[in-house]
Amino acid sequence: MSGASDHLRVVLVGASNPLNIGAVARAMSNFGFLRLRVVNAYDVAFREAKSAVGAASVLTNAEEFTKLSDAVADCTLVVGTTAVRHRELQHPLRRLEYGARLIRKELATGSVALVFGPEKTGLSNDDLSYCHWLMNIPTREQHISMNLGQAVAVCLYELVRDGRKTTPAKKMVKQEKTEKHATAGEVERISDGLLEALHRSGYVNPVAATSTEERVRRLVRRMDLSSKDAELWLGMLRQILWKVRSGDHQK
Amino acid sequence: MSGASDHLRVVLVGASNPLNIGAVARAMSNFGFLRLRVVNAYDVAFREAKSAVGAASVLTNAEEFTKLSDAVADCTLVVGTTAVRHRELQHPLRRLEYGARLIRKELATGSVALVFGPEKTGLSNDDLSYCHWLMNIPTREQHISMNLGQAVAVCLYELVRDGRKTTPAKKMVKQEKTEKHATAGEVERISDGLLEALHRSGYVNPVAATSTEERVRRLVRRMDLSSKDAELWLGMLRQILWKVRSGDHQK
Repeated sequence: MSGASDHLRVVLVGASNPLNIGAVARAMSNFGFLRLRVVNAYDVAFREAKSAVGAASVLTNAEEFTKLSDAVADCTLVVGTTAVRHRELQHPLRRLEYGARLIRKELATGSVALVFGPEKTGLSNDDLSYCHWLMNIPTREQHISMNLGQAVAVCLYELVRDGRKTTPAKKMVKQEKTEKHATAGEVERISDGLLEALHRSGYVNPVAATSTEERVRRLVRRMDLSSKDAELWLGMLRQILWKVRSGDHQK
Repeated sequence: MSGASDHLRVVLVGASNPLNIGAVARAMSNFGFLRLRVVNAYDVAFREAKSAVGAASVLTNAEEFTKLSDAVADCTLVVGTTAVRHRELQHPLRRLEYGARLIRKELATGSVALVFGPEKTGLSNDDLSYCHWLMNIPTREQHISMNLGQAVAVCLYELVRDGRKTTPAKKMVKQEKTEKHATAGEVERISDGLLEALHRSGYVNPVAATSTEERVRRLVRRMDLSSKDAELWLGMLRQILWKVRSGDHQK
Protein backbone atom coordinates (compact mmCIF):
# COMPACT_ATOMS: atom_id res chain seq x y z
CA MET A 1 0.00 0.00 0.00
CA SER A 2 2.24 2.80 1.26
CA GLY A 3 1.35 5.87 -0.80
CA ALA A 4 -1.83 4.24 -2.03
CA SER A 5 -3.27 4.09 1.48
CA ASP A 6 -3.46 7.85 1.36
CA HIS A 7 -5.96 7.47 -1.47
CA LEU A 8 -8.55 5.68 0.59
CA ARG A 9 -11.26 7.51 2.49
CA VAL A 10 -13.20 5.66 5.11
CA VAL A 11 -16.64 7.26 5.17
CA LEU A 12 -18.96 6.77 8.13
CA VAL A 13 -22.57 7.67 7.52
CA GLY A 14 -24.77 8.39 10.54
CA ALA A 15 -22.61 6.65 13.12
CA SER A 16 -24.21 7.15 16.51
CA ASN A 17 -21.94 5.45 19.06
CA PRO A 18 -18.81 7.36 20.06
CA LEU A 19 -17.10 4.10 21.04
CA ASN A 20 -17.63 2.78 17.55
CA ILE A 21 -16.30 5.94 15.96
CA GLY A 22 -13.24 5.70 18.18
CA ALA A 23 -12.77 2.05 17.31
CA VAL A 24 -12.97 2.86 13.59
CA ALA A 25 -10.29 5.51 13.99
CA ARG A 26 -8.07 3.12 15.89
CA ALA A 27 -8.31 0.40 13.27
CA MET A 28 -7.56 2.95 10.57
CA SER A 29 -4.46 4.03 12.42
CA ASN A 30 -3.44 0.40 12.97
CA PHE A 31 -3.56 -0.33 9.27
CA GLY A 32 -2.21 2.98 8.04
CA PHE A 33 -5.32 4.54 6.53
CA LEU A 34 -5.54 8.02 8.00
CA ARG A 35 -8.34 9.75 6.08
CA LEU A 36 -11.64 9.56 7.89
CA ARG A 37 -14.78 11.30 6.70
CA VAL A 38 -17.87 11.53 8.78
CA VAL A 39 -21.29 12.21 7.30
CA ASN A 40 -24.14 13.35 9.42
CA ALA A 41 -22.73 11.79 12.56
CA TYR A 42 -24.74 12.51 15.63
CA ASP A 43 -22.96 15.58 16.69
CA VAL A 44 -22.65 14.51 20.28
CA ALA A 45 -21.24 11.11 19.40
CA PHE A 46 -18.59 12.60 17.19
CA ARG A 47 -17.54 15.22 19.78
CA GLU A 48 -17.38 12.60 22.46
CA ALA A 49 -15.27 10.25 20.36
CA LYS A 50 -12.98 13.11 19.45
CA SER A 51 -12.40 14.12 23.03
CA ALA A 52 -11.81 10.60 24.30
CA VAL A 53 -8.44 10.05 25.91
CA GLY A 54 -5.97 8.81 23.36
CA ALA A 55 -8.18 9.60 20.39
CA ALA A 56 -6.10 8.83 17.36
CA SER A 57 -5.00 11.76 15.27
CA VAL A 58 -7.16 10.11 12.64
CA LEU A 59 -10.12 11.38 14.60
CA THR A 60 -8.93 14.89 15.20
CA ASN A 61 -8.16 15.22 11.51
CA ALA A 62 -11.49 13.75 10.39
CA GLU A 63 -13.51 15.78 7.91
CA GLU A 64 -17.21 16.40 8.49
CA PHE A 65 -19.89 16.47 5.82
CA THR A 66 -23.62 16.81 5.86
CA LYS A 67 -24.20 14.96 2.61
CA LEU A 68 -22.72 11.69 1.40
CA SER A 69 -22.52 13.10 -2.12
CA ASP A 70 -20.10 15.76 -0.92
CA ALA A 71 -18.05 13.29 1.09
CA VAL A 72 -17.37 11.12 -1.95
CA ALA A 73 -17.22 13.87 -4.57
CA ASP A 74 -13.47 13.63 -5.17
CA CYS A 75 -13.38 9.82 -5.30
CA THR A 76 -13.06 7.78 -8.48
CA LEU A 77 -14.60 4.68 -6.92
CA VAL A 78 -17.28 4.52 -4.23
CA VAL A 79 -17.86 1.19 -2.54
CA GLY A 80 -20.69 0.67 -0.08
CA THR A 81 -20.57 -2.02 2.59
CA THR A 82 -23.58 -4.08 3.52
CA ALA A 83 -24.43 -7.09 5.62
CA VAL A 84 -27.51 -7.77 3.54
CA ARG A 85 -27.14 -10.37 0.86
CA HIS A 86 -30.36 -10.49 -1.05
CA ARG A 87 -32.06 -7.16 -0.87
CA GLU A 88 -33.30 -6.43 -4.36
CA LEU A 89 -29.88 -5.07 -4.89
CA GLN A 90 -29.50 -2.91 -7.93
CA HIS A 91 -25.77 -3.10 -7.40
CA PRO A 92 -23.18 -5.73 -7.98
CA LEU A 93 -22.30 -7.31 -4.65
CA ARG A 94 -18.80 -8.65 -4.05
CA ARG A 95 -17.32 -10.59 -1.21
CA LEU A 96 -14.60 -8.66 0.57
CA GLU A 97 -11.81 -10.93 -0.70
CA TYR A 98 -12.62 -10.12 -4.32
CA GLY A 99 -13.81 -6.57 -3.88
CA ALA A 100 -10.58 -5.67 -2.12
CA ARG A 101 -8.61 -6.59 -5.21
CA LEU A 102 -10.52 -4.06 -7.27
CA ILE A 103 -10.11 -1.43 -4.59
CA ARG A 104 -6.37 -1.99 -4.39
CA LYS A 105 -6.15 -1.65 -8.12
CA GLU A 106 -8.04 1.59 -8.15
CA LEU A 107 -5.98 3.04 -5.31
CA ALA A 108 -2.92 2.88 -7.48
CA THR A 109 -4.23 5.69 -9.67
CA GLY A 110 -7.44 7.10 -8.20
CA SER A 111 -9.13 7.60 -4.83
CA VAL A 112 -11.61 5.23 -3.28
CA ALA A 113 -14.35 5.85 -0.73
CA LEU A 114 -15.27 2.92 1.46
CA VAL A 115 -18.65 3.71 2.94
CA PHE A 116 -20.17 2.28 6.13
CA GLY A 117 -23.76 2.91 7.23
CA PRO A 118 -25.38 3.55 10.63
CA GLU A 119 -24.96 0.81 13.24
CA LYS A 120 -28.62 -0.16 13.40
CA THR A 121 -29.84 0.14 9.87
CA GLY A 122 -26.92 0.10 7.48
CA LEU A 123 -26.80 2.23 4.36
CA SER A 124 -30.13 3.45 3.00
CA ASN A 125 -31.18 3.01 -0.59
CA ASP A 126 -30.43 6.64 -1.11
CA ASP A 127 -26.91 6.18 0.24
CA LEU A 128 -26.44 3.15 -1.97
CA SER A 129 -27.27 5.18 -5.01
CA TYR A 130 -23.92 6.94 -4.65
CA CYS A 131 -22.02 3.69 -4.74
CA HIS A 132 -20.51 1.95 -7.76
CA TRP A 133 -20.89 -1.42 -6.16
CA LEU A 134 -21.29 -3.10 -2.80
CA MET A 135 -19.13 -5.31 -0.70
CA ASN A 136 -19.95 -7.72 2.11
CA ILE A 137 -17.89 -9.52 4.70
CA PRO A 138 -18.35 -13.31 4.59
CA THR A 139 -20.15 -13.73 7.91
CA ARG A 140 -22.38 -16.71 8.55
CA GLU A 141 -26.04 -16.64 7.54
CA GLN A 142 -27.32 -16.90 11.10
CA HIS A 143 -25.48 -13.79 12.24
CA ILE A 144 -24.57 -11.53 9.38
CA SER A 145 -24.45 -8.14 11.07
CA MET A 146 -21.07 -7.05 12.39
CA ASN A 147 -20.10 -4.40 14.86
CA LEU A 148 -19.04 -1.25 13.00
CA GLY A 149 -15.53 -1.02 14.42
CA GLN A 150 -14.90 -4.67 13.71
CA ALA A 151 -16.27 -4.46 10.18
CA VAL A 152 -13.94 -1.57 9.38
CA ALA A 153 -10.97 -3.41 10.91
CA VAL A 154 -11.64 -6.51 8.82
CA CYS A 155 -12.04 -4.54 5.56
CA LEU A 156 -8.85 -2.57 6.10
CA TYR A 157 -6.94 -5.70 7.05
CA GLU A 158 -7.99 -7.28 3.77
CA LEU A 159 -6.60 -4.25 1.97
CA VAL A 160 -3.16 -4.53 3.56
CA ARG A 161 -2.87 -8.27 3.82
CA ASP A 162 -0.11 -9.93 1.88
CA GLY A 163 -1.75 -11.89 -0.91
CA ARG A 164 1.40 -13.47 -2.24
CA LYS A 165 0.84 -17.09 -3.01
CA THR A 166 3.38 -19.72 -2.26
CA THR A 167 6.52 -17.73 -1.66
CA PRO A 168 5.71 -16.65 1.86
CA ALA A 169 4.89 -20.21 2.86
CA LYS A 170 8.28 -21.28 1.72
CA LYS A 171 9.93 -18.36 3.41
CA MET A 172 8.08 -19.06 6.60
CA VAL A 173 9.11 -22.67 6.80
CA LYS A 174 12.63 -21.68 6.09
CA GLN A 175 12.61 -18.97 8.71
CA GLU A 176 11.45 -21.62 11.10
CA LYS A 177 14.80 -23.30 10.71
CA THR A 178 17.38 -20.68 10.05
CA GLU A 179 18.90 -21.77 13.30
CA LYS A 180 21.92 -23.92 13.11
CA HIS A 181 21.13 -27.58 13.48
CA ALA A 182 22.77 -29.71 16.09
CA THR A 183 25.59 -31.83 14.77
CA ALA A 184 25.17 -35.59 14.61
CA GLY A 185 27.78 -35.80 17.35
CA GLU A 186 25.72 -33.64 19.70
CA VAL A 187 22.62 -35.63 18.91
CA GLU A 188 24.45 -38.82 19.63
CA ARG A 189 25.68 -37.53 23.00
CA ILE A 190 22.12 -36.71 23.92
CA SER A 191 20.96 -40.19 22.95
CA ASP A 192 23.78 -41.68 24.99
CA GLY A 193 22.97 -39.60 28.05
CA LEU A 194 19.32 -40.38 27.86
CA LEU A 195 20.03 -44.07 27.39
CA GLU A 196 22.33 -44.18 30.38
CA ALA A 197 19.64 -42.56 32.52
CA LEU A 198 17.13 -45.10 31.23
CA HIS A 199 19.44 -48.02 31.87
CA ARG A 200 20.18 -46.92 35.39
CA SER A 201 16.48 -46.36 36.07
CA GLY A 202 15.60 -49.85 34.93
CA TYR A 203 13.59 -48.61 31.94
CA VAL A 204 15.55 -50.76 29.55
CA ASN A 205 14.68 -54.40 29.58
CA PRO A 206 18.01 -56.18 28.92
CA VAL A 207 16.36 -58.63 26.55
CA ALA A 208 15.04 -55.86 24.35
CA ALA A 209 17.94 -53.48 24.92
CA THR A 210 18.94 -53.10 21.29
CA SER A 211 15.49 -52.26 20.06
CA THR A 212 14.96 -49.80 22.91
CA GLU A 213 18.22 -48.11 22.09
CA GLU A 214 17.24 -47.76 18.48
CA ARG A 215 13.87 -46.43 19.43
CA VAL A 216 15.38 -43.78 21.69
CA ARG A 217 17.93 -42.79 19.10
CA ARG A 218 15.23 -42.30 16.49
CA LEU A 219 13.17 -40.36 18.99
CA VAL A 220 16.02 -37.96 19.66
CA ARG A 221 16.62 -37.47 15.95
CA ARG A 222 12.97 -36.70 15.37
CA MET A 223 13.35 -33.80 17.78
CA ASP A 224 15.34 -32.13 15.03
CA LEU A 225 17.24 -30.05 17.56
CA SER A 226 18.95 -26.77 16.97
CA SER A 227 22.49 -26.49 18.16
CA LYS A 228 21.37 -24.27 21.05
CA ASP A 229 18.68 -26.65 22.21
CA ALA A 230 21.10 -29.53 22.02
CA GLU A 231 23.35 -27.70 24.44
CA LEU A 232 20.45 -27.18 26.82
CA TRP A 233 19.57 -30.86 26.68
CA LEU A 234 23.15 -31.92 27.28
CA GLY A 235 23.33 -29.71 30.36
CA MET A 236 20.08 -31.05 31.74
CA LEU A 237 21.00 -34.66 31.11
CA ARG A 238 24.42 -34.22 32.68
CA GLN A 239 22.79 -33.02 35.87
CA ILE A 240 20.10 -35.69 35.94
CA LEU A 241 22.72 -38.37 35.32
CA TRP A 242 24.83 -37.08 38.16
CA LYS A 243 21.83 -37.47 40.41
CA VAL A 244 20.92 -40.90 39.10
CA ARG A 245 24.48 -42.16 39.48
CA SER A 246 24.81 -40.80 42.99
CA GLY A 247 21.67 -42.77 43.89
CA ASP A 248 23.41 -45.92 42.62
CA HIS A 249 26.53 -45.30 44.64
CA GLN A 250 24.56 -45.08 47.85
CA LYS A 251 23.35 -48.63 47.45
CA MET B 1 -14.34 -24.53 7.65
CA SER B 2 -17.72 -25.92 8.70
CA GLY B 3 -16.97 -28.78 11.10
CA ALA B 4 -13.43 -27.59 11.53
CA SER B 5 -14.59 -24.34 13.09
CA ASP B 6 -15.81 -26.39 16.01
CA HIS B 7 -12.19 -27.34 16.68
CA LEU B 8 -11.05 -23.82 17.39
CA ARG B 9 -11.07 -22.38 20.89
CA VAL B 10 -10.69 -18.66 21.29
CA VAL B 11 -8.98 -18.18 24.63
CA LEU B 12 -9.07 -14.80 26.38
CA VAL B 13 -6.56 -14.35 29.17
CA GLY B 14 -7.22 -11.66 31.74
CA ALA B 15 -9.65 -9.63 29.65
CA SER B 16 -10.88 -6.74 31.79
CA ASN B 17 -13.36 -4.80 29.68
CA PRO B 18 -16.86 -6.26 29.37
CA LEU B 19 -17.42 -4.42 26.10
CA ASN B 20 -14.37 -6.10 24.64
CA ILE B 21 -15.46 -9.51 25.82
CA GLY B 22 -18.84 -8.89 24.26
CA ALA B 23 -17.25 -7.74 21.01
CA VAL B 24 -15.10 -10.86 20.89
CA ALA B 25 -18.18 -13.04 21.32
CA ARG B 26 -19.96 -11.18 18.58
CA ALA B 27 -17.13 -11.57 16.08
CA MET B 28 -16.95 -15.27 16.93
CA SER B 29 -20.63 -15.65 16.23
CA ASN B 30 -20.30 -13.67 12.99
CA PHE B 31 -17.62 -15.99 11.68
CA GLY B 32 -19.03 -19.22 13.07
CA PHE B 33 -16.54 -20.00 15.83
CA LEU B 34 -18.60 -20.70 18.90
CA ARG B 35 -16.16 -22.01 21.51
CA LEU B 36 -14.97 -19.30 23.84
CA ARG B 37 -12.74 -19.92 26.85
CA VAL B 38 -12.02 -17.29 29.41
CA VAL B 39 -9.02 -17.48 31.71
CA ASN B 40 -8.85 -15.41 34.81
CA ALA B 41 -11.19 -12.76 33.48
CA TYR B 42 -12.04 -10.07 35.95
CA ASP B 43 -15.09 -11.64 37.35
CA VAL B 44 -17.13 -8.50 37.19
CA ALA B 45 -16.23 -7.86 33.57
CA PHE B 46 -17.22 -11.34 32.54
CA ARG B 47 -20.55 -11.23 34.43
CA GLU B 48 -21.34 -7.87 32.97
CA ALA B 49 -20.56 -8.97 29.45
CA LYS B 50 -22.63 -12.08 29.94
CA SER B 51 -25.64 -10.19 31.18
CA ALA B 52 -25.53 -7.55 28.44
CA VAL B 53 -28.64 -7.35 26.31
CA GLY B 54 -28.25 -9.52 23.26
CA ALA B 55 -25.20 -11.31 24.56
CA ALA B 56 -24.42 -13.94 22.00
CA SER B 57 -24.93 -17.54 23.02
CA VAL B 58 -21.18 -17.76 22.54
CA LEU B 59 -20.88 -15.84 25.77
CA THR B 60 -23.39 -17.78 27.80
CA ASN B 61 -21.71 -20.99 26.72
CA ALA B 62 -18.19 -19.74 27.44
CA GLU B 63 -16.04 -21.92 29.67
CA GLU B 64 -14.13 -20.40 32.57
CA PHE B 65 -10.65 -21.42 33.71
CA THR B 66 -8.25 -20.17 36.34
CA LYS B 67 -5.14 -21.37 34.53
CA LEU B 68 -4.12 -21.09 30.90
CA SER B 69 -2.59 -24.55 31.02
CA ASP B 70 -6.02 -26.01 31.80
CA ALA B 71 -7.73 -23.94 29.13
CA VAL B 72 -5.48 -25.32 26.40
CA ALA B 73 -4.94 -28.83 27.78
CA ASP B 74 -7.02 -30.60 25.12
CA CYS B 75 -5.59 -28.65 22.19
CA THR B 76 -3.00 -30.00 19.78
CA LEU B 77 -1.81 -26.56 18.72
CA VAL B 78 -1.62 -23.45 20.90
CA VAL B 79 -1.05 -20.15 19.12
CA GLY B 80 -0.45 -16.93 21.02
CA THR B 81 -1.19 -13.54 19.53
CA THR B 82 1.10 -10.59 20.08
CA ALA B 83 1.52 -7.06 18.81
CA VAL B 84 5.17 -7.08 19.73
CA ARG B 85 7.58 -7.77 16.92
CA HIS B 86 11.01 -7.74 18.41
CA ARG B 87 10.83 -8.80 22.01
CA GLU B 88 13.59 -11.32 22.36
CA LEU B 89 10.99 -13.75 21.19
CA GLN B 90 11.85 -17.30 21.95
CA HIS B 91 9.07 -18.41 19.66
CA PRO B 92 8.65 -18.44 15.93
CA LEU B 93 6.52 -15.44 14.99
CA ARG B 94 4.27 -15.61 11.95
CA ARG B 95 2.19 -13.00 10.21
CA LEU B 96 -1.50 -13.76 10.38
CA GLU B 97 -1.76 -14.57 6.67
CA TYR B 98 0.74 -17.40 6.95
CA GLY B 99 -0.04 -18.54 10.46
CA ALA B 100 -3.69 -18.94 9.56
CA ARG B 101 -2.80 -21.53 6.94
CA LEU B 102 -1.14 -23.69 9.54
CA ILE B 103 -4.07 -23.25 11.88
CA ARG B 104 -6.56 -24.23 9.19
CA LYS B 105 -4.53 -27.32 8.47
CA GLU B 106 -4.36 -28.35 12.09
CA LEU B 107 -8.09 -27.79 12.53
CA ALA B 108 -8.74 -30.56 10.03
CA THR B 109 -7.48 -33.21 12.46
CA GLY B 110 -6.75 -31.60 15.83
CA SER B 111 -7.92 -28.70 17.99
CA VAL B 112 -6.36 -25.29 18.09
CA ALA B 113 -6.32 -22.69 20.85
CA LEU B 114 -5.97 -19.09 19.68
CA VAL B 115 -4.88 -17.13 22.73
CA PHE B 116 -5.31 -13.39 23.32
CA GLY B 117 -3.80 -11.53 26.27
CA PRO B 118 -5.05 -8.73 28.52
CA GLU B 119 -5.93 -5.45 26.80
CA LYS B 120 -3.18 -3.38 28.36
CA THR B 121 -0.25 -5.74 28.57
CA GLY B 122 -0.74 -8.61 26.16
CA LEU B 123 0.36 -12.14 26.99
CA SER B 124 3.01 -12.53 29.68
CA ASN B 125 6.16 -14.55 29.18
CA ASP B 126 4.62 -17.22 31.34
CA ASP B 127 1.54 -17.31 29.11
CA LEU B 128 3.74 -17.48 26.03
CA SER B 129 5.54 -20.50 27.38
CA TYR B 130 2.35 -22.51 26.77
CA CYS B 131 2.28 -21.55 23.10
CA HIS B 132 3.81 -23.42 20.20
CA TRP B 133 4.28 -20.26 18.21
CA LEU B 134 3.08 -16.69 17.95
CA MET B 135 1.13 -14.75 15.42
CA ASN B 136 0.84 -11.05 14.74
CA ILE B 137 -1.49 -8.93 12.69
CA PRO B 138 0.34 -6.80 10.12
CA THR B 139 -0.36 -3.40 11.66
CA ARG B 140 1.91 -0.46 10.98
CA GLU B 141 5.00 0.13 13.07
CA GLN B 142 3.77 3.43 14.49
CA HIS B 143 0.61 1.91 15.92
CA ILE B 144 0.88 -1.81 16.39
CA SER B 145 -1.51 -2.42 19.24
CA MET B 146 -5.06 -3.32 18.25
CA ASN B 147 -8.29 -3.26 20.19
CA LEU B 148 -9.04 -6.76 21.48
CA GLY B 149 -12.41 -7.18 19.78
CA GLN B 150 -11.01 -5.97 16.49
CA ALA B 151 -7.95 -8.20 16.71
CA VAL B 152 -10.14 -11.25 17.25
CA ALA B 153 -12.41 -10.25 14.36
CA VAL B 154 -9.47 -9.88 11.99
CA CYS B 155 -7.93 -13.22 12.98
CA LEU B 156 -11.19 -15.10 12.58
CA TYR B 157 -11.89 -13.44 9.27
CA GLU B 158 -8.53 -14.62 8.00
CA LEU B 159 -9.50 -18.15 9.01
CA VAL B 160 -12.74 -18.13 7.03
CA ARG B 161 -11.71 -16.02 4.08
CA ASP B 162 -11.76 -17.63 0.69
CA GLY B 163 -8.17 -18.00 -0.37
CA ARG B 164 -8.82 -19.55 -3.74
CA LYS B 165 -6.51 -18.55 -6.51
CA THR B 166 -4.04 -18.68 -3.67
CA THR B 167 -2.99 -22.26 -4.20
CA PRO B 168 -3.16 -23.89 -0.82
CA ALA B 169 0.33 -23.33 0.52
CA LYS B 170 1.94 -26.14 -1.40
CA LYS B 171 2.15 -29.66 -0.25
CA MET B 172 5.50 -29.03 1.34
CA VAL B 173 3.96 -27.87 4.57
CA LYS B 174 1.78 -30.94 4.69
CA GLN B 175 4.67 -33.31 4.69
CA GLU B 176 5.73 -31.48 7.83
CA LYS B 177 3.29 -33.44 9.99
CA THR B 178 0.79 -36.02 9.02
CA GLU B 179 0.96 -37.57 12.45
CA LYS B 180 -1.40 -36.51 15.19
CA HIS B 181 0.11 -33.88 17.43
CA ALA B 182 0.41 -34.26 21.16
CA THR B 183 -2.18 -32.32 23.13
CA ALA B 184 -1.09 -29.34 25.20
CA GLY B 185 -1.96 -31.39 28.28
CA GLU B 186 0.48 -34.14 27.31
CA VAL B 187 3.16 -31.62 26.52
CA GLU B 188 2.60 -29.97 29.88
CA ARG B 189 2.96 -33.29 31.70
CA ILE B 190 6.29 -33.82 29.96
CA SER B 191 7.46 -30.35 30.99
CA ASP B 192 6.36 -31.04 34.54
CA GLY B 193 8.16 -34.37 34.68
CA LEU B 194 11.32 -32.96 33.24
CA LEU B 195 11.20 -30.01 35.62
CA GLU B 196 10.77 -32.26 38.62
CA ALA B 197 13.80 -34.28 37.57
CA LEU B 198 15.76 -31.09 37.13
CA HIS B 199 14.69 -29.72 40.48
CA ARG B 200 15.60 -32.90 42.27
CA SER B 201 18.96 -33.00 40.51
CA GLY B 202 19.81 -29.49 41.59
CA TYR B 203 19.78 -28.20 38.01
CA VAL B 204 17.34 -25.44 38.85
CA ASN B 205 18.83 -22.51 40.67
CA PRO B 206 16.02 -21.38 43.01
CA VAL B 207 16.75 -17.74 42.28
CA ALA B 208 16.17 -18.21 38.55
CA ALA B 209 13.52 -20.91 38.91
CA THR B 210 10.81 -19.11 36.95
CA SER B 211 12.95 -18.32 33.97
CA THR B 212 14.34 -21.85 33.93
CA GLU B 213 10.83 -23.23 34.02
CA GLU B 214 9.77 -21.03 31.14
CA ARG B 215 12.86 -22.01 29.22
CA VAL B 216 12.19 -25.69 29.70
CA ARG B 217 8.56 -25.29 28.77
CA ARG B 218 9.48 -23.59 25.54
CA LEU B 219 12.10 -26.20 24.84
CA VAL B 220 9.56 -28.98 25.17
CA ARG B 221 7.13 -27.16 22.89
CA ARG B 222 9.80 -26.69 20.26
CA MET B 223 10.12 -30.46 20.11
CA ASP B 224 6.76 -30.38 18.36
CA LEU B 225 5.97 -33.90 19.53
CA SER B 226 3.61 -36.32 17.94
CA SER B 227 1.12 -37.98 20.21
CA LYS B 228 3.08 -41.23 20.01
CA ASP B 229 6.41 -39.67 20.91
CA ALA B 230 4.78 -37.84 23.79
CA GLU B 231 3.74 -41.19 25.18
CA LEU B 232 7.29 -42.49 24.90
CA TRP B 233 8.67 -39.47 26.70
CA LEU B 234 6.14 -39.75 29.47
CA GLY B 235 7.10 -43.37 30.02
CA MET B 236 10.80 -42.59 30.10
CA LEU B 237 10.41 -39.66 32.44
CA ARG B 238 8.22 -41.66 34.79
CA GLN B 239 10.97 -44.21 35.15
CA ILE B 240 13.78 -41.70 35.54
CA LEU B 241 11.74 -39.82 38.12
CA TRP B 242 11.13 -43.00 40.06
CA LYS B 243 14.89 -43.49 40.19
CA VAL B 244 15.68 -39.90 41.09
CA ARG B 245 13.07 -39.90 43.85
CA SER B 246 14.29 -43.18 45.30
CA GLY B 247 17.78 -41.66 45.47
CA ASP B 248 16.30 -38.86 47.56
CA HIS B 249 14.61 -41.26 49.94
CA GLN B 250 17.83 -43.07 50.66
CA LYS B 251 19.39 -39.96 52.11
